[in-house]
Amino acid sequence: MKTLHVELGHRSYPIHIGPALLSQPELVRQHVKGQQVLIVSNETVAPLYMSQTKKLFEEYDCQEVILPDGEKFKTLDVLNKIFDALLDKRFDRSCTLVALGGGVIGDMTGFAAASYQRGVPFIQIPTTLLSQVDSSVGGKTGVNHELGKNMIGAFYQPQCVLADTDTMTTLEDRELSAGLAEVIKYGLIRLPEFISWLEKNMSQLLVRDTQALSYAIEVSCQCKADLVAQDEREGGVRALLNLGHTFGHAIETGMGYGNWLHGEAVAMGMVLAADVSMRHGWLKQSDVDRVVTLTEKAKLPVKLPDIMDFTTFMKYMQVDKKVRDGKINYVLFNALGDAKITNEVKRDHIQASIEFFRD
Amino acid sequence: MKTLHVELGHRSYPIHIGPALLSQPELVRQHVKGQQVLIVSNETVAPLYMSQTKKLFEEYDCQEVILPDGEKFKTLDVLNKIFDALLDKRFDRSCTLVALGGGVIGDMTGFAAASYQRGVPFIQIPTTLLSQVDSSVGGKTGVNHELGKNMIGAFYQPQCVLADTDTMTTLEDRELSAGLAEVIKYGLIRLPEFISWLEKNMSQLLVRDTQALSYAIEVSCQCKADLVAQDEREGGVRALLNLGHTFGHAIETGMGYGNWLHGEAVAMGMVLAADVSMRHGWLKQSDVDRVVTLTEKAKLPVKLPDIMDFTTFMKYMQVDKKVRDGKINYVLFNALGDAKITNEVKRDHIQASIEFFRD
Repeated sequence: MKTLHVELGHRSYPIHIGPALLSQPELVRQHVKGQQVLIVSNETVAPLYMSQTKKLFEEYDCQEVILPDGEKFKTLDVLNKIFDALLDKRFDRSCTLVALGGGVIGDMTGFAAASYQRGVPFIQIPTTLLSQVDSSVGGKTGVNHELGKNMIGAFYQPQCVLADTDTMTTLEDRELSAGLAEVIKYGLIRLPEFISWLEKNMSQLLVRDTQALSYAIEVSCQCKADLVAQDEREGGVRALLNLGHTFGHAIETGMGYGNWLHGEAVAMGMVLAADVSMRHGWLKQSDVDRVVTLTEKAKLPVKLPDIMDFTTFMKYMQVDKKVRDGKINYVLFNALGDAKITNEVKRDHIQASIEFFRD
Repeated sequence: MKTLHVELGHRSYPIHIGPALLSQPELVRQHVKGQQVLIVSNETVAPLYMSQTKKLFEEYDCQEVILPDGEKFKTLDVLNKIFDALLDKRFDRSCTLVALGGGVIGDMTGFAAASYQRGVPFIQIPTTLLSQVDSSVGGKTGVNHELGKNMIGAFYQPQCVLADTDTMTTLEDRELSAGLAEVIKYGLIRLPEFISWLEKNMSQLLVRDTQALSYAIEVSCQCKADLVAQDEREGGVRALLNLGHTFGHAIETGMGYGNWLHGEAVAMGMVLAADVSMRHGWLKQSDVDRVVTLTEKAKLPVKLPDIMDFTTFMKYMQVDKKVRDGKINYVLFNALGDAKITNEVKRDHIQASIEFFRD
């Protein structure tokens, strides 16, 4: 087991990474202050890991609430089911919430913890690669509104995170690849040597080798933790984490939510970001080729569907949260492993990249 | 105009108190960072003060949302109407919310501001005496759940507060008295001279004399601001602000919400707290008489309805948020103007006080 620390003053917390963490109660017990624990999970994850997780908390008054599975249930209405459970059990301010599941469960449980009686502690147990390397670090919690994703929420940090690599064994292949997209992202943003490591070890990751996974998760969480510690509320460097996301969100929306996974859209977005950077003279063609090859190795898409033309992209990118004063802020490259934020971008180059990758 | 400062580090903010503040745009403009302003009000207050308030923000893209009036609309569902308005107008992270109304509007607007895109600034314009002296200071925001009051929310501070004493002219007599209950509370907690001032000036307050009101609001806000600055998240001295509230909540619940105003129940609760303290030997009978007389002068109740017997009180007090480990923490008196928190209380004395004041 490896332990990282996210340094945020009195809101600092540890991330434990490795196999068999769900059998180590001592990792979580020190973070539970009162006697009441509510585990929040969903219909897919609960049958796999609820009983094991409950054993972590068997000395406590441990209750559970099971939500429906999927992004479309990340709403205020479903959030209220967590409050229903807390109040029904008469849980007080000293209770602890536990998020057992992927990003949706983590985001909702975190926001419920931020808001219940104006704030109670919570513990993250992410069970997907995506949530282990992304949403469990950074303190972004919340729910969607029918007019926009993640529009209602809070910055709120967990007491600790358990990223148990054994939970990767029950993950679908497509979900594993979607998580790898975010892993690749950290390399492309600021870790050139990690890009080389991924090029060598991608096949080990795909067969869920514990050691390779642990290392990739550790590097990813450390990279995100560093950026978040520098910029907790996203005024500066943290925005680099949006690499691939401006193009990616347009793809997700344009294709209809749920057709492309978030990680798949981000992967394609990073390929576009590399190609656009090359057309501006910031990357070489061989750099773009490396990104495409690595993305393909991770079994992620490198071709755009025909309907995603330039006009469609522009329509959806204009409404992105990253737009300021009508100008789109793109995350592009100075070099592979050195991303930058810029709005000095030629429309022609964007159009050319989109046309090049359209099927 | 008088200006107080609530000292909370980088979350410090000014409270402006006095007449005609709604005609002074310079008070609010420095606190509006972006171009978009949403004023949140209700069906009762909007016809009285919306057009005047909009003039404060006429250089901005200023929109409004009008909610139904009353505590029963302080819910997640109604909160969502604020998010609907924000997203419908495509308001971004640089927008500012303005709460124009009483405590319910302030609490809901504050929580909406805390949660919209994980936090945007807000300005409080409280239009009731209760909200001017109580809920506009302290950063408690939130909504009710059907199983408990104020169970969902956040600690979140405004950019500034405008307590315009002119808005007192449109307040119903009963609402004015309910606000005076909280004003009296500050005297009883820690300001013996202010008790004497109130005894002399109560009639001026009841006829809404601007100077008397300004002074009473100023002393009250300063007292609350001091306690909050010492204890932002209610671990210690801030709990003194609950004087009268443990008994008061039991009365509100026992009588059915809306039959007694919150301030009325708190006033009766403070009378009980004084009487219970006397029975423990901490106050003299003459102290209790002063509390009763001052409460009557403010046209607040000093008699309990017959149905509020000892058993009923105990039933509702056991579920109060202030209960820890099954023991009720009471706010009682060392002396008038010197409140204390204690759970060393004799049930017999509580029963005797309740019986004494039952009609």
